Amino acid sequence: MKGVPNYLVALALTALACSLASAFDPSPLQDFCVSTNSSLDGVFVNGKFCKDPKLVTPNDFFFPGLNIPGSTENQLGLAVTGVGVDQLFGLNTLGISLARVDIAPYGVNPPHTHPRATEIFLVVEGTLLAGFVSSSPDNRLFAKILNPGDLFIFPFGLIHFQINVGKTNAVAFASFSSQNPGAITIANNVFGSNPPINPDVLVKAFQLDKNVVMSLQKKFST
Amino acid sequence: MKGVPNYLVALALTALACSLASAFDPSPLQDFCVSTNSSLDGVFVNGKFCKDPKLVTPNDFFFPGLNIPGSTENQLGLAVTGVGVDQLFGLNTLGISLARVDIAPYGVNPPHTHPRATEIFLVVEGTLLAGFVSSSPDNRLFAKILNPGDLFIFPFGLIHFQINVGKTNAVAFASFSSQNPGAITIANNVFGSNPPINPDVLVKAFQLDKNVVMSLQKKFST
Amino acid sequence: MKGVPNYLVALALTALACSLASAFDPSPLQDFCVSTNSSLDGVFVNGKFCKDPKLVTPNDFFFPGLNIPGSTENQLGLAVTGVGVDQLFGLNTLGISLARVDIAPYGVNPPHTHPRATEIFLVVEGTLLAGFVSSSPDNRLFAKILNPGDLFIFPFGLIHFQINVGKTNAVAFASFSSQNPGAITIANNVFGSNPPINPDVLVKAFQLDKNVVMSLQKKFST
Amino acid sequence: MKGVPNYLVALALTALACSLASAFDPSPLQDFCVSTNSSLDGVFVNGKFCKDPKLVTPNDFFFPGLNIPGSTENQLGLAVTGVGVDQLFGLNTLGISLARVDIAPYGVNPPHTHPRATEIFLVVEGTLLAGFVSSSPDNRLFAKILNPGDLFIFPFGLIHFQINVGKTNAVAFASFSSQNPGAITIANNVFGSNPPINPDVLVKAFQLDKNVVMSLQKKFST
Amino acid sequence: MKGVPNYLVALALTALACSLASAFDPSPLQDFCVSTNSSLDGVFVNGKFCKDPKLVTPNDFFFPGLNIPGSTENQLGLAVTGVGVDQLFGLNTLGISLARVDIAPYGVNPPHTHPRATEIFLVVEGTLLAGFVSSSPDNRLFAKILNPGDLFIFPFGLIHFQINVGKTNAVAFASFSSQNPGAITIANNVFGSNPPINPDVLVKAFQLDKNVVMSLQKKFST
Amino acid sequence: MKGVPNYLVALALTALACSLASAFDPSPLQDFCVSTNSSLDGVFVNGKFCKDPKLVTPNDFFFPGLNIPGSTENQLGLAVTGVGVDQLFGLNTLGISLARVDIAPYGVNPPHTHPRATEIFLVVEGTLLAGFVSSSPDNRLFAKILNPGDLFIFPFGLIHFQINVGKTNAVAFASFSSQNPGAITIANNVFGSNPPINPDVLVKAFQLDKNVVMSLQKKFST
Repeated sequence: MKGVPNYLVALALTALACSLASAFDPSPLQDFCVSTNSSLDGVFVNGKFCKDPKLVTPNDFFFPGLNIPGSTENQLGLAVTGVGVDQLFGLNTLGISLARVDIAPYGVNPPHTHPRATEIFLVVEGTLLAGFVSSSPDNRLFAKILNPGDLFIFPFGLIHFQINVGKTNAVAFASFSSQNPGAITIANNVFGSNPPINPDVLVKAFQLDKNVVMSLQKKFST
Repeated sequence: MKGVPNYLVALALTALACSLASAFDPSPLQDFCVSTNSSLDGVFVNGKFCKDPKLVTPNDFFFPGLNIPGSTENQLGLAVTGVGVDQLFGLNTLGISLARVDIAPYGVNPPHTHPRATEIFLVVEGTLLAGFVSSSPDNRLFAKILNPGDLFIFPFGLIHFQINVGKTNAVAFASFSSQNPGAITIANNVFGSNPPINPDVLVKAFQLDKNVVMSLQKKFST
Repeated sequence: MKGVPNYLVALALTALACSLASAFDPSPLQDFCVSTNSSLDGVFVNGKFCKDPKLVTPNDFFFPGLNIPGSTENQLGLAVTGVGVDQLFGLNTLGISLARVDIAPYGVNPPHTHPRATEIFLVVEGTLLAGFVSSSPDNRLFAKILNPGDLFIFPFGLIHFQINVGKTNAVAFASFSSQNPGAITIANNVFGSNPPINPDVLVKAFQLDKNVVMSLQKKFST
Repeated sequence: MKGVPNYLVALALTALACSLASAFDPSPLQDFCVSTNSSLDGVFVNGKFCKDPKLVTPNDFFFPGLNIPGSTENQLGLAVTGVGVDQLFGLNTLGISLARVDIAPYGVNPPHTHPRATEIFLVVEGTLLAGFVSSSPDNRLFAKILNPGDLFIFPFGLIHFQINVGKTNAVAFASFSSQNPGAITIANNVFGSNPPINPDVLVKAFQLDKNVVMSLQKKFST
Repeated sequence: MKGVPNYLVALALTALACSLASAFDPSPLQDFCVSTNSSLDGVFVNGKFCKDPKLVTPNDFFFPGLNIPGSTENQLGLAVTGVGVDQLFGLNTLGISLARVDIAPYGVNPPHTHPRATEIFLVVEGTLLAGFVSSSPDNRLFAKILNPGDLFIFPFGLIHFQINVGKTNAVAFASFSSQNPGAITIANNVFGSNPPINPDVLVKAFQLDKNVVMSLQKKFST
Repeated sequence: MKGVPNYLVALALTALACSLASAFDPSPLQDFCVSTNSSLDGVFVNGKFCKDPKLVTPNDFFFPGLNIPGSTENQLGLAVTGVGVDQLFGLNTLGISLARVDIAPYGVNPPHTHPRATEIFLVVEGTLLAGFVSSSPDNRLFAKILNPGDLFIFPFGLIHFQINVGKTNAVAFASFSSQNPGAITIANNVFGSNPPINPDVLVKAFQLDKNVVMSLQKKFST
């Protein structure tokens, strides 16, 4: 990705990727199951291991600083500050997470999907155009201008986006129906995969010249 | 409930009751299933009937006005503005919902539980003390002072509360892991049920004089 | 809790807390997954670790002694003998559990909720009044006198209770839709948490004098 | 089935079939959803339609008479009195059900499976041998003699049975992790299907002479 | 989409969209629940209404003709013949579906995602390159050349594709962990939505000139 | 089991037992969770432990050789080549699996059930009669002759079978709605358990002479 500090995009996307979670998460089987980082030598489970409940404290359920804007000094004009199970260990098994989204004027939260969650999007500052597209073969766009106090739903698994159509920074809070919803930013996922997808696939899929495809793959390579 | 306009409490509680939703909701089986009010002569299903997907519009996913404070002119100093499947039909089957919570200075969101959801609580204005208690036999209190930008988790099904310990109004947004989590306000549910619970049960359970129990039942009767 | 042996209450509540289980439990992914006590140095998972299936025996699925009355020599006149995943390791992942409930004449099983289960309550001896209350804002009481052979349902997550209204001991069997439903005894949870809830919260919530609240907190502290 | 009143077997099996329920039931999306018999002209949903919650009464959650023995005057010496969602409408969406099982001396509850539930089996009178067999290729038998007060687990979906090995009637209560678990009595299902299974299938499967197979099919035809 | 008969693409995509299904589908609550087309005047439920079980026949579980190649005479060289709940009514509530995929030499099954299913892809003729990309921020490509008898997994919700890299037609069978998984073909969904997405969103997201974006939107408009 | 190499049956059954998976599997909580064989000293979880995601490769999602017929040189004329989570580690948490089924002329896939899955059965060669039986008390047979390209559904948990009624080998692919559905072959499970079921149970259940029962138990003992 040219002309934008990679580490910022990586940071924003890491946050996004880590911050999401789903209505389909396995249910809790105890009051709580705060995740630990204990790696057990590279062994993992579906979800996370938990710490001893006797050692759990209020801080395991607490996350500060969501009043602080993320930096939107990047090409997209976007900052996503995620609070999922990787940031707030107390969310483990509880089926919900949250993110703060900052978008500068003209900035864009590009088309993306969460493979494991529905999202509720609440605008608290600025003016955004937000939308999602239904699945094949209809591909219907459901879009709306959102002002402070407005809420919009992005249904489970569908591609959605926002663009700042106002003159000031926009701030929103996004809630996800999973403690780890995941995020797939379409352009980066399709054109910036590592290693790259065979360009012939993208030429046919997007009806673009091979040159354009390869140039896009170069731009989005990380 | 004496000394507080009943309609306000009823309103707040209705909002609360209607605004919540769960990690355990049955999964969506289509892109969306916007609920309808079509009653089919008093016949219901688990969840809600849906409208014809061809008639669905962006407004079915849109809810405005969450920037407007609810009135806290009541005994608890509390307003809960819920956005669950009964307020925003597009939430049906999607496993998430939201509420705006306003608490005046000295105001209280009294101990309550959501039978079908975890809650993420994000403070955006003011200073609150928030806490939850783990289940029997430990009954451990996990509590924390929260300032703007602070987030706290209330795990699935556990009793929790907030109190405004600052000098200004407090505002928070609560996200729930269900489109219809339900709410059980403990005092109203136990002392204000209709018809009342046999007072002998409450005398033994709360170790209170029968007079005190019956006086409470009178206060909370609606 | 004054005037009643704490260890009995603790025992009853531990039994209760440990004995319950839910319709929302993650499904089994093998024939059985008998839980172990292997602690792996304070590391846990959602649910329980399992023992090697080759070492499983019929005794892992067997629990004796539910014909023996529990002692009701305590203030509540109550004994709950729970058989959940913590007592019978074979229940792990299987989504169901059971408890024997003994209630002396005038005894009470005080208002409580199971955060993760529906309960089926079957009376085999004596006469009980049983009831549950629906969620806010209706708070409707559904109650019924139960004689031997009578069964009553306590729906998922709702507050319920029983009182012995006969002249002899009452015995019932309770089935739960989870191998670990949890139990929240309202009075103990709200007035007996450790550390105590800020009394101002309870004063407002229960419309009681601060003196009464603090006296209750003293009684229920453990 | 020769030498035993068909209507009794049918009754017992109907009861059994109707009385069972599962850990995998879709979760409740409201406090309760009491099922109705309103047929809407032969249209059904996954589960059941529900009645208007305003019309729900305590009786919707109440089922009497489980203290009364079922008649074991039939070839198997067996009576199963089921209380599932088809008998007790309040169980709808709640993920649990119950059955009373009576077995005469020498009587048998023949090998069967519940396609949608785990079972907890509690003996209250008499002496039974109970067992289940794990899945292929191990086919391990887990069996145990059960006396009053003894509880045994039949894990989800596995084939199990009981036989009265005492000299008196045996009585047990079975709890199921579904409001509608279903029951498949192996012999009746395989040899008594309507229309019959091609006998060549059963000859090869059970390594029996074709004559024996056809004689069995005649006996079990209903 | 220029230069390819729209109706073919629409057909293929309809088939695809209709043919998929998920591990997260609500569980069956009866042996089967064959879906009906009875519309009840534009009223729908989560999933489908079912026909009277007494009227169900073997044909409700039967679908013929998957030995017949679909026509790949279109720009993508692709035919997807889906068998989901909309084609085979017996799949309702059962959590699985299937599709036949034909790809001509040089043909492509373009990048797409199933919002509600994992896919198992089994090649029976020809040689394909198949791959999927993990979610943000890693965007790792997992790809493999597949020959007859080779099977590959596309995990839940992730973007995946296939390209025919052999000289003969390729045929594969795809199984999905839902009776209605849905399909989102990325290019058509993002550039061909109806109405179109604001081009400024796509300019920033894909780092393309506005002219290129608008030309793509024209090509993919249907 | 007489007259057929036990190791072949064991192999086929092991494959079958290991190859199946369910609509009720707990959902993935990350992109993938490839299972490992790391035993952690005989400690297990519900499902499987996973390997470090950084070490995952395309081969973890790849399984070759399903174009190769299994050997049907055994008494049943049957070969089942299963690809479940025990054969293909990448299937862990993903809720789906597959098997290749070969049946010689006159061969039989005997009555069996999958405790944790629905099955879609697709014939690609030969002619089979396939059927399943609904649960008690109806025991209705749903059967159909299947030719290449024909698909049939075996609903969740119900007993089903196939028999080759053509003159050539038959080949089918079976998809299961679980990564580990399990298989219970009725005859082997009931007559060949280890240790054997008390013959009196089977005498009453199958209305067979004790001699016949004991002879069957001898034949099926392994």
